[in-house]
Amino acid sequence: MSINNLGIVQRNIVRADKAAVEKLSRYGVATIHEAMGRVGLMKPYIRPIYPSASICGTAVTILLQPGDNWMMHVAAEQFQDGDVAVAACTTDSTDGFFGDLLATSFRARGCQGLIIDAGVRDVNDLTAMDFPVFSRAINAKGTVKATLGSVNVPVVCAGAVVNPGDVVIADIDGVVVVPAAIAQQVADAAEKRESLEAEKRAKFQAGELGLDLYKMREPLEKAGLKYLD
Amino acid sequence: MSINNLGIVQRNIVRADKAAVEKLSRYGVATIHEAMGRVGLMKPYIRPIYPSASICGTAVTILLQPGDNWMMHVAAEQFQDGDVAVAACTTDSTDGFFGDLLATSFRARGCQGLIIDAGVRDVNDLTAMDFPVFSRAINAKGTVKATLGSVNVPVVCAGAVVNPGDVVIADIDGVVVVPAAIAQQVADAAEKRESLEAEKRAKFQAGELGLDLYKMREPLEKAGLKYLD
Amino acid sequence: MSINNLGIVQRNIVRADKAAVEKLSRYGVATIHEAMGRVGLMKPYIRPIYPSASICGTAVTILLQPGDNWMMHVAAEQFQDGDVAVAACTTDSTDGFFGDLLATSFRARGCQGLIIDAGVRDVNDLTAMDFPVFSRAINAKGTVKATLGSVNVPVVCAGAVVNPGDVVIADIDGVVVVPAAIAQQVADAAEKRESLEAEKRAKFQAGELGLDLYKMREPLEKAGLKYLD
Amino acid sequence: MSINNLGIVQRNIVRADKAAVEKLSRYGVATIHEAMGRVGLMKPYIRPIYPSASICGTAVTILLQPGDNWMMHVAAEQFQDGDVAVAACTTDSTDGFFGDLLATSFRARGCQGLIIDAGVRDVNDLTAMDFPVFSRAINAKGTVKATLGSVNVPVVCAGAVVNPGDVVIADIDGVVVVPAAIAQQVADAAEKRESLEAEKRAKFQAGELGLDLYKMREPLEKAGLKYLD
Amino acid sequence: MSINNLGIVQRNIVRADKAAVEKLSRYGVATIHEAMGRVGLMKPYIRPIYPSASICGTAVTILLQPGDNWMMHVAAEQFQDGDVAVAACTTDSTDGFFGDLLATSFRARGCQGLIIDAGVRDVNDLTAMDFPVFSRAINAKGTVKATLGSVNVPVVCAGAVVNPGDVVIADIDGVVVVPAAIAQQVADAAEKRESLEAEKRAKFQAGELGLDLYKMREPLEKAGLKYLD
Amino acid sequence: MSINNLGIVQRNIVRADKAAVEKLSRYGVATIHEAMGRVGLMKPYIRPIYPSASICGTAVTILLQPGDNWMMHVAAEQFQDGDVAVAACTTDSTDGFFGDLLATSFRARGCQGLIIDAGVRDVNDLTAMDFPVFSRAINAKGTVKATLGSVNVPVVCAGAVVNPGDVVIADIDGVVVVPAAIAQQVADAAEKRESLEAEKRAKFQAGELGLDLYKMREPLEKAGLKYLD
Repeated sequence: MSINNLGIVQRNIVRADKAAVEKLSRYGVATIHEAMGRVGLMKPYIRPIYPSASICGTAVTILLQPGDNWMMHVAAEQFQDGDVAVAACTTDSTDGFFGDLLATSFRARGCQGLIIDAGVRDVNDLTAMDFPVFSRAINAKGTVKATLGSVNVPVVCAGAVVNPGDVVIADIDGVVVVPAAIAQQVADAAEKRESLEAEKRAKFQAGELGLDLYKMREPLEKAGLKYLD
Repeated sequence: MSINNLGIVQRNIVRADKAAVEKLSRYGVATIHEAMGRVGLMKPYIRPIYPSASICGTAVTILLQPGDNWMMHVAAEQFQDGDVAVAACTTDSTDGFFGDLLATSFRARGCQGLIIDAGVRDVNDLTAMDFPVFSRAINAKGTVKATLGSVNVPVVCAGAVVNPGDVVIADIDGVVVVPAAIAQQVADAAEKRESLEAEKRAKFQAGELGLDLYKMREPLEKAGLKYLD
Repeated sequence: MSINNLGIVQRNIVRADKAAVEKLSRYGVATIHEAMGRVGLMKPYIRPIYPSASICGTAVTILLQPGDNWMMHVAAEQFQDGDVAVAACTTDSTDGFFGDLLATSFRARGCQGLIIDAGVRDVNDLTAMDFPVFSRAINAKGTVKATLGSVNVPVVCAGAVVNPGDVVIADIDGVVVVPAAIAQQVADAAEKRESLEAEKRAKFQAGELGLDLYKMREPLEKAGLKYLD
Repeated sequence: MSINNLGIVQRNIVRADKAAVEKLSRYGVATIHEAMGRVGLMKPYIRPIYPSASICGTAVTILLQPGDNWMMHVAAEQFQDGDVAVAACTTDSTDGFFGDLLATSFRARGCQGLIIDAGVRDVNDLTAMDFPVFSRAINAKGTVKATLGSVNVPVVCAGAVVNPGDVVIADIDGVVVVPAAIAQQVADAAEKRESLEAEKRAKFQAGELGLDLYKMREPLEKAGLKYLD
Repeated sequence: MSINNLGIVQRNIVRADKAAVEKLSRYGVATIHEAMGRVGLMKPYIRPIYPSASICGTAVTILLQPGDNWMMHVAAEQFQDGDVAVAACTTDSTDGFFGDLLATSFRARGCQGLIIDAGVRDVNDLTAMDFPVFSRAINAKGTVKATLGSVNVPVVCAGAVVNPGDVVIADIDGVVVVPAAIAQQVADAAEKRESLEAEKRAKFQAGELGLDLYKMREPLEKAGLKYLD
Repeated sequence: MSINNLGIVQRNIVRADKAAVEKLSRYGVATIHEAMGRVGLMKPYIRPIYPSASICGTAVTILLQPGDNWMMHVAAEQFQDGDVAVAACTTDSTDGFFGDLLATSFRARGCQGLIIDAGVRDVNDLTAMDFPVFSRAINAKGTVKATLGSVNVPVVCAGAVVNPGDVVIADIDGVVVVPAAIAQQVADAAEKRESLEAEKRAKFQAGELGLDLYKMREPLEKAGLKYLD
């Protein structure tokens, strides 16, 4: 076993089932996160660079070194249609590792968006291209190409483990990672959850209370809740 | 006297006078904050989830426990038309305590918006509903319903004391709390301040300097200001 | 030599050459930062108050004291057409030192925008006026007029040194400072860099890889990169 | 009713009962916080300037303006033996509002320590004097004396409401505020809690598990906990 | 495959080889991190609660829910001599999940210290016990026992993946995680690195420059470094 | 004029007068900062790695690239007795750019301490050596040697401009920079300020109030301060 996973490009990765990915693309991040049992979220400091940005695809992971975006170019060769770039850095950084030229290259190679635990730039161009990016910062700070990281090794991105091939879904509520092996199962659970929400919404709209809908009055009383006048 | 104020729902609260609330709704947060003598603001990390969000209403306060939104459902029953939900947490949290279902319920019960010193989710839906929310974070992270907090007790929300019934005004500049007892007085002061601004604006537009308008040249000189060429 | 630079207004400053400023205005912040050799950026916490805000002009610098915007009024008298106000504070602050009245005054005196390492307010009005502001915070918190700072002394604003007369360019990617003495040189370098980008963009769009375009395969191999299947 | 509470010195305040304060001084912050039902803590960014610092006394509150420590001198006159200075600021600040001269003055007037939601300096001297301070920052940054705040008005300090006369207890675990009216009740509850801890400690030391001591096995099983081999 | 890893206690875990753990205990965190090729560190916000705290042992992992330390008690039963508790939370939290009673219990069951991506309390007692803790915060804030997390599932703690049985080494420089499978290999590499340092130290002490020792003058010149007089 | 100041080592720098440096070394950071008119401080996030660390010397400045400490070795050759290393980075970083080997080398070459707006490691060794370091972070994270920065160019370190040869004084209260040209003047002003403090301290100790000592009662009354009973 190698002592670390730097300096590696894994070419063959197992991507989540396409049908599961497609089905997951129908649901929001909050719904999928709940369907998974409230796990799998990245930290909330990862934000879309424009409000309507959204992504659902299979992860090609990139491990960057601080102030160095060499591996971005290495990654470009590894995309297949429907992939999403997920970039982590070996240390906290807000440098601008990615801009419109790389976005042009990534898109031409099949990549549909980027999640990056660091900064990006050329945000006006990326927005005009409608190339969705979710990042920790917007920052014009440029980078060098001098030190090896890796492509398609497991990474921790904004607090979440991402394995190559996992499904990554991102919208204005955040970013959730669904392991490839349970993608279909989670998609089904999301569907079920969503179907229950329409009914609840109608009841809430009609003025029914969650206290009654969820039968909370008794457990609240047991827990000791007191109403004062 | 009880040792703390957890596990309590205060049903009868004294809301600020409706006419005063209506009058306050005509002024921006900065103007009202100045009219109060530069106090009453929440900390600036509370931000609107969409730029045009704005709120003016009487507070129903909610004290949440970390990772637990049970009290949101308890609060839903206590709203009257024109109320605003003001939610604090017993510890710093960015979890998503609130989403579109609760917003539907809150609105159906008369609540016109939410100020929360924590996170919210379903931001696309909330924006589509035009349900104004001012929060510390956007976060898909879900919560449980297991531990009692309170409704309509005094809370500290983002650094500001909020008593049930106080007027809370929120816009893109921040959130200000006006105690119910001085709502009319503050509204009148805001009106007066606003009326003076139009005149000043015209003078500034014509190129007059604040140095002259506010007669600052003499005090600046006394303070020792030196002009160098 | 005076022991500090407080309480001073420098009236005569050497502004960067107008033609150089005009040429710099054609390029984005990321391009200019790269053209300078990757220096000159403010820290990325300085953000536009509305997404389309952009500025390019010569700096009139303002050194503020905490919670005190007196020097804003002193600065208003020093603007010439095409200037940009660059405000630093002697300590970290997010107070709202600037709003729509000052913007009206600044604009009437030739100032085209504000960069401030602190907070601003009246953001709806500033947006309606299309008065571009890049700030550390949005905050309704008002300030007093009691303690001297300075105008047109060198300042450190969000980590960057700004001398009066320097060119300051700001857009959604951040803020870059170009010393007056090298403005033309940097503008030329930016032009050259931009002209190369169009060609690269076309190649990337056609699917060519950065690996080949930048001849990275050999140096990557030398650095030890390993491809695994 | 006055529109705000700036520019006020309240001379007569009701201090918590001395016996209750003395009793509270025997317990740690964590114990007292639990005895109150898990409320009353300041935020954890308030830290002692040296590890052994600890305080228990009645609050004289100080409301500061940013970069201005005028009210510190006003407060000095209001101390009685056993008081603690609790200083909040109308905005977030890390300036050094307090140093060894003020500590000398405060001590001479009966004040036994300081809690401040801002910065302090002269930390070597304060440590040598064994003058306990709990602050948000250590910072040499000096302040002016130009704008009125208040003394002995209710303040929000690091997220906690402090009324003049409340008991404030501070140690390495943080700072807790006990309202004067319930000081005796809380002291008694703390005593009771502490007495139970000795017994528990012995059991834990002997290897007994919390699972058994607190009878958690059944509720854990009901909640669905699964043991895998 | 289960959809998530909540509500699970894995009883049988594969701990790193005892000899490798013992050997790793001889080296500092910086040395081991370098020996692994500069990976495996937790983020630097995890700090010791007292300066001399240090830990080297095999991980029993704990996944906590916000404001809830129930799983701490579940974990206590799973320790073997030489284990270290590594606690992550499903969301960012600074609550005090751990104090002297749990430390007494943990120690009695063989646990030699705690790494926690959250807060702890009773720091005076923990220091007196010399029970080493590395945490994100010190905070008296108490927790409840209501919601299931897990024990001995893989966790992300302060940005690092920790699998049950991995070696965790902590000292004043930070915390590093060594996967069980490569513990011996890393220990050997650390030994080698350390042995080289003594020689270098002697040379540096004698005034030799890194420029010469590491033969940097030529690569620096090639990179374009210019010496000016 | 060169377009930026990267890739440069300035060998001949003008150091502040030795007698002035020696005199400054007698005063604390707070005193010197006040003597300069309340300017010159670095931001308070720069902290000593051990409480008794203190420094007074002439700056050799180092401009680092992210994750890269190559310039540290270049700087080692430039020290003269009594110098202090002041290291800034072209971007925010907490990586560990410096440890005990470099400290050994720096000390052997005349350097008496380090101020760094980034991280350091080997803190136990540095403490044992009594090599004073003031840093933004403690972090075991290692760095590479691949990209040029500079030595002895003006830098912005933690918000303060530092020119090579300036006097840098650091103690537990923070770090202050005194431009070489005014070092003697500032030292004299510090001496004067210090001499006044002893007298004040005695008066405060005797119970005299700042209100009387500084004749504040009248200006407070004029400002509108009201005493309530």
